[in-house]
Amino acid sequence: MTNPTAAMLVIGDEILSGRTRDINMHVLAQALTQHGIDLKEARVVSDDRDAIVNAVKSLSEAYDQVFTSGGIGPTHDDITADCVAEAFGVHIDIRDDARALLTAFFERRGVEATEGRMRMARIPDGATLIENPVSVAPGFTIENVHVMAGVPSVFEAMVASVLPTIKGGAPLLSQTLRIELPEGEIAGPLRGLAEAHPTLSIGSYPFQHNGAFGSNIVIRGHDGSEVDAAMVKLAELFPGNLA
Amino acid sequence: MTNPTAAMLVIGDEILSGRTRDINMHVLAQALTQHGIDLKEARVVSDDRDAIVNAVKSLSEAYDQVFTSGGIGPTHDDITADCVAEAFGVHIDIRDDARALLTAFFERRGVEATEGRMRMARIPDGATLIENPVSVAPGFTIENVHVMAGVPSVFEAMVASVLPTIKGGAPLLSQTLRIELPEGEIAGPLRGLAEAHPTLSIGSYPFQHNGAFGSNIVIRGHDGSEVDAAMVKLAELFPGNLA
Repeated sequence: MTNPTAAMLVIGDEILSGRTRDINMHVLAQALTQHGIDLKEARVVSDDRDAIVNAVKSLSEAYDQVFTSGGIGPTHDDITADCVAEAFGVHIDIRDDARALLTAFFERRGVEATEGRMRMARIPDGATLIENPVSVAPGFTIENVHVMAGVPSVFEAMVASVLPTIKGGAPLLSQTLRIELPEGEIAGPLRGLAEAHPTLSIGSYPFQHNGAFGSNIVIRGHDGSEVDAAMVKLAELFPGNLA
Repeated sequence: MTNPTAAMLVIGDEILSGRTRDINMHVLAQALTQHGIDLKEARVVSDDRDAIVNAVKSLSEAYDQVFTSGGIGPTHDDITADCVAEAFGVHIDIRDDARALLTAFFERRGVEATEGRMRMARIPDGATLIENPVSVAPGFTIENVHVMAGVPSVFEAMVASVLPTIKGGAPLLSQTLRIELPEGEIAGPLRGLAEAHPTLSIGSYPFQHNGAFGSNIVIRGHDGSEVDAAMVKLAELFPGNLA
């Protein structure tokens, strides 16, 4: 039994220019791991129509689920919704259900329903809205693509709204052992362990602390008893060097 | 005159599982912007042979320069160098120049040249070494692909080593104006400004501060006088709402 796969698509010039540091990828990665969905790839593209349309098409074909972040606000550079509609060849316009949400919110807040703001009600035909408990303007799901905001607080809230609607698998379990040896001396025995457990992912993350070299060895897998068994073998390989 | 384009490829299960938060993308994005190279795309893939080979092939065809991060250490999951060699169809083995760097370093440090450590001297035929002033084990450049370490301090040092060897363009200039109005009220006039300046990138980054809504408008371009001119027009659009 294998878990569903996923990709993330981050849309935004501000990440690629170095102005802003993306944090949504890390939030989504952790949420998917808990939900039993394997995030296999993440891409960042600029606010460019062709780049977005092509990435949506290729990722939605290659993976079970696709999560996008960014480009659904009120300004001219927010073109994600239109690009996703184009990728699936469906019509997009201001939709009544999204308009109703927004106008009710604007009335409560006493803000004007400008043309820019109403752009946030543009939803492709056939899409399901994703609730936004932070600032109301919804995301949406169409086919296997989940379109969410780039503002981190809104992105995180939308992930929480949409994940329960997606079937997950076995959560990825992981155990870490800190070994107080340079990575170069761990590498040989570790390779043998990895070859003996092909269904596990065994990673080595070196560190340097107060001038001493060490490495955190992380064993990940969906079968808890196999993770445990490999962890026991790992500890036996380095009896004198455990923290 | 357009600037060279670039893509980044981050290799590492630890990013996609949410264990580690990538920071190299932000470091590279800022360095490339300063150097006049336009970072157009970034991808994160797992430590998987096919995923790495395919990403290297498609990115090196699509962009002028490709920068990779991760997967060149001494352990079994460090497969980036072999995958890059495969992507370009060239032979890879421990190479004398890299071996000499490493053995001299190991002798000075009094550490053993284990099989794992010597894996870090695997360099594809025809590649040029990238200096690593932090921990000696080199990166390399082959064709338009620059292969660097994932450890942030090493990655940053390698970027500093390799960038002077790559022809840059006009640095991307940017100016920011903080407007104390909700994004929805900025959107209309901003669209007009963007349409009047098609060669500039004009982004809106909303914020909420002490309950008040505002947005930072960032105008980016390679022509400083055009950025200036657009910035003057922007300020005139919102005379009463500047910070």
